Amino acid sequence: MIYTYLGPAGTFTESALLQVPGAGDAERVPATSVNNALERVRTGEADAAMVPIENSVEGGVSATLDAIATGGSLQIVAEALVPITFDLIVRDGIEELEQIRTVATHGHAWAQCRGWADANMPAAEFVPASSTAAGAMAILDGDPDVDAAICSPLVAEQNPLKVLRNAIEDNAGAVTRFVLVHRPGAIPRPTGSDKTTIVIPLPEDRPGGLMEILEQFAARGVNLSRIESRPTGKGLGNYFFSVDTHGHIDEARMADALAGLHRISPELRFLGSYPAAGPSQIDPPSLKRHNTDAAFADAAEWIASIRGRAL
Amino acid sequence: MIYTYLGPAGTFTESALLQVPGAGDAERVPATSVNNALERVRTGEADAAMVPIENSVEGGVSATLDAIATGGSLQIVAEALVPITFDLIVRDGIEELEQIRTVATHGHAWAQCRGWADANMPAAEFVPASSTAAGAMAILDGDPDVDAAICSPLVAEQNPLKVLRNAIEDNAGAVTRFVLVHRPGAIPRPTGSDKTTIVIPLPEDRPGGLMEILEQFAARGVNLSRIESRPTGKGLGNYFFSVDTHGHIDEARMADALAGLHRISPELRFLGSYPAAGPSQIDPPSLKRHNTDAAFADAAEWIASIRGRAL
Amino acid sequence: MIYTYLGPAGTFTESALLQVPGAGDAERVPATSVNNALERVRTGEADAAMVPIENSVEGGVSATLDAIATGGSLQIVAEALVPITFDLIVRDGIEELEQIRTVATHGHAWAQCRGWADANMPAAEFVPASSTAAGAMAILDGDPDVDAAICSPLVAEQNPLKVLRNAIEDNAGAVTRFVLVHRPGAIPRPTGSDKTTIVIPLPEDRPGGLMEILEQFAARGVNLSRIESRPTGKGLGNYFFSVDTHGHIDEARMADALAGLHRISPELRFLGSYPAAGPSQIDPPSLKRHNTDAAFADAAEWIASIRGRAL
Amino acid sequence: MIYTYLGPAGTFTESALLQVPGAGDAERVPATSVNNALERVRTGEADAAMVPIENSVEGGVSATLDAIATGGSLQIVAEALVPITFDLIVRDGIEELEQIRTVATHGHAWAQCRGWADANMPAAEFVPASSTAAGAMAILDGDPDVDAAICSPLVAEQNPLKVLRNAIEDNAGAVTRFVLVHRPGAIPRPTGSDKTTIVIPLPEDRPGGLMEILEQFAARGVNLSRIESRPTGKGLGNYFFSVDTHGHIDEARMADALAGLHRISPELRFLGSYPAAGPSQIDPPSLKRHNTDAAFADAAEWIASIRGRAL
Repeated sequence: MIYTYLGPAGTFTESALLQVPGAGDAERVPATSVNNALERVRTGEADAAMVPIENSVEGGVSATLDAIATGGSLQIVAEALVPITFDLIVRDGIEELEQIRTVATHGHAWAQCRGWADANMPAAEFVPASSTAAGAMAILDGDPDVDAAICSPLVAEQNPLKVLRNAIEDNAGAVTRFVLVHRPGAIPRPTGSDKTTIVIPLPEDRPGGLMEILEQFAARGVNLSRIESRPTGKGLGNYFFSVDTHGHIDEARMADALAGLHRISPELRFLGSYPAAGPSQIDPPSLKRHNTDAAFADAAEWIASIRGRAL
Repeated sequence: MIYTYLGPAGTFTESALLQVPGAGDAERVPATSVNNALERVRTGEADAAMVPIENSVEGGVSATLDAIATGGSLQIVAEALVPITFDLIVRDGIEELEQIRTVATHGHAWAQCRGWADANMPAAEFVPASSTAAGAMAILDGDPDVDAAICSPLVAEQNPLKVLRNAIEDNAGAVTRFVLVHRPGAIPRPTGSDKTTIVIPLPEDRPGGLMEILEQFAARGVNLSRIESRPTGKGLGNYFFSVDTHGHIDEARMADALAGLHRISPELRFLGSYPAAGPSQIDPPSLKRHNTDAAFADAAEWIASIRGRAL
Repeated sequence: MIYTYLGPAGTFTESALLQVPGAGDAERVPATSVNNALERVRTGEADAAMVPIENSVEGGVSATLDAIATGGSLQIVAEALVPITFDLIVRDGIEELEQIRTVATHGHAWAQCRGWADANMPAAEFVPASSTAAGAMAILDGDPDVDAAICSPLVAEQNPLKVLRNAIEDNAGAVTRFVLVHRPGAIPRPTGSDKTTIVIPLPEDRPGGLMEILEQFAARGVNLSRIESRPTGKGLGNYFFSVDTHGHIDEARMADALAGLHRISPELRFLGSYPAAGPSQIDPPSLKRHNTDAAFADAAEWIASIRGRAL
Repeated sequence: MIYTYLGPAGTFTESALLQVPGAGDAERVPATSVNNALERVRTGEADAAMVPIENSVEGGVSATLDAIATGGSLQIVAEALVPITFDLIVRDGIEELEQIRTVATHGHAWAQCRGWADANMPAAEFVPASSTAAGAMAILDGDPDVDAAICSPLVAEQNPLKVLRNAIEDNAGAVTRFVLVHRPGAIPRPTGSDKTTIVIPLPEDRPGGLMEILEQFAARGVNLSRIESRPTGKGLGNYFFSVDTHGHIDEARMADALAGLHRISPELRFLGSYPAAGPSQIDPPSLKRHNTDAAFADAAEWIASIRGRAL
């Protein structure tokens, strides 16, 4: 297996990839952009790509949402959740926060740790780096102008770096969700706690379009865990919806909901059913009897028995 | 074929039965009640029964609604509409309205013609009869105490009776709808303008129960032409709904709606799909593309193609 | 106060009327029909009428539903529930069931006790009477041809009659619901467990008409306890709905639901808010916060504050 | 009036601002970010800010959506639509496309014109600039290393620059929508073609939350023109919705919908009612009678008349 991911090495995306069984020992090729990573999968250069899809603070990752919604078909086969937490690493000779005069990191990371920095090392000056990993490399390379860097725990683990503080982010509990993407193929078996991701073009510019879509889910007891609207590029008011739902296409209620959606929006794109990361999110008692596979099977059998009466 | 119907002979129910091709020459056995007529079909004593189900003035016929909703299964194979209009027939010797001192008829018929009678023969006294046909028979038998009778046009046609006035009903345009009932068997082929009748027990005493039922129809573009609530006999607040819809179970949207209803109310009873009487009530352009058989077939094929990807 | 009710004296309707505080000592005038009782109220001949509206076995009482839905406005100010149970009364000299050769009662009462009669006094012959009270009067009058009568407990209580058996009905637990009707006037104050009755003409012959009506209730958390469709008399497919709901027009959610209904069906008729008989049917915890009077008041205040910003 | 806008001068945001009557002659202060522009309004440093909210290709502008949804209250008083089109400007001495070896512009602009550049001046090399205006300034300053720049038509108009080609964007027809933001105050009067913008926190993490929100609009015939989900920052699955609707808070249907939303999501934020840019989007015949101000007024009067009956 050859994996690619939104690089460079040591970022949160690589942390997500390392959650995939076997990926730690496999070839892992960083890509320069989400589009680049997905293109490598489409062309066969890589077997799978790990890309971010949703951040609890920043929201949906537009580049990913748009890239998997169009172009050659792709399939999500797994998801991974990575807590967004930062380490403060220092060069040899730095033992106390007061000694730090410069801190190298990516602007995004600096923004997420700035409150902590202002309170704990007010004299430190920010030195922009092209990625958090690049800031850490400056330390590793012994750059004398860089006293400290802010990076992901993975970079600190993968390299001989001295961590002075950890969890210095201002917004504790932030999480980024990543998805592992293949070319279309086998669908992972249902586990009892699965997600299904779909892309639904808004049928036409009509008032109740979105509600009609949501009713297809509600009528079968399918819950949504994420919904994003994205422009189709055809002008203001033209959207598609990117939706994650709880359930697997092998479940009758999910298949029935997707069939209903296909009728009202035939360009619907199925992006995969895969095991949900984290604690199970379908409380079995909350699945009503009339939405179970058994209820669907009984109903289908009853209809068949009536239609079977020949004229 | 042996037919039975709510008797006696000459009533509107026999008029309805005579609309059935071939019934005019077949054996027609009047029954004393709706229950009696349906029981003859259940036991095989008769092949089919014609019974009233709905009247444009009086509403649903409770006896019929309840009798077909419970007990041995039955199937509606046809419907018939009969205009409710009355003739005034008189005995020999009566030439003018002023001569009439007594009018025999059933109380219901008297009630429907009373305004006309008050205006046109104010001196006439009402003589109750057990049916409109019985009142007419008194004339035929030469009962000297009966100058006139009010009866259906059919009685007047079937017997040597003198009609002095016709269409004397106060409420012009009243119509009664009748259904022809068989033991369960072959379903008449779709004609493009069909009805489907079902009995749906309210799943449980919950606020939104009826709305949930109606949504199953609405979600597939199935229109209702009649809905009646009837008690189940298990206490106030326990209902079943008797429903007529436009469409045939051979249409995908109808089968899908019934499957959805079966899931939420498994004791649902299918009472038949049969040609609609009167002008076509499904305007084909009003059937949206996403509710056509083609849209259902496309959706099913799409789901099958995704599920077909083996693990 | 002068009360009228569907007579004759001693029937279940009088039992219902006697539940009204003060009615036991007031003038009570039996009427020959529901229409007659309501007309006495409309003309001022009586102050209030007690009439049956719903039976747990037979369903809605069409005569009442239609009479209060049209004609001069009336208002329901109370409801009463009466268990339908029958006594077997006998003439002097009858001590054992075996001695009974004839039983006088109304056909409806006979139908409801026939199973018991077949099992317990198979030799007794049914003698039709014009009401259950009339059958009892035959016993009281010492008619030698009548050994027994079947009547309501009230008749047995009101007269010197010998009750041989009670609760002989086949269908234990049947209940009839009655309503007390005034000319429009003051609305009884909310008690916390109230009902509101309305008549809603189906706006037009459109598919989703009934669903649109139900949504007005659902959107404000108003539950329905009864719904009946009745023909308007203008042809098949033209209905009005007679609806009982839990709640009082003084509650914001009810007023808002009725205002919504008035917009879609301006001929809506309000028939009254009045205390519910029997145990409270609104479980306060089931009333969601967003449907409370407080939530409505907050929302109205918020809108007013925004609109208050002058240009 | 002091206006601020997302700078620097000459960008599309300034074009949007110049559509505001009087803004051409008023003080216009560029801001370095959306947050900075809005903060100037909140502090009173500026009276109004023009910021982008939605792009037909890129989607919602997260920085704006988030900044107006939280923090001190702000109010949208106008919107402006600006077509996104680019000019190619050249330094003195350049007459033909073949002469161009370097092109300075912002990365975003380069991305949107790259197809045209590849086809028409394949030898030209991209020189990154901090904004399209900055690229143009290099030409104006006579930088000998910059042969050409890609910028908005406004920059070309405002400065003595030579335009070699215009409309060189690959994606013709792209539009960005901007909003003019004030501190809360008077609401512009209804024009008959207005928009209302609101921010609705999803009440709780419940399946039907979004549908419940949409139903509030649908029940009053209020159409949506934009809906975006944004994270609240409290963890995956916690959203608020940013919504534009057709209509004005002075219309009864809009006020009623907002009141309904306030009940289910009391933290709802009203961001303004203002004239819609572009052609009228409310087709008056499409507004159903039961959603007109007259229908709301009739319904309110009817309720008041019933409630007015004192006990």
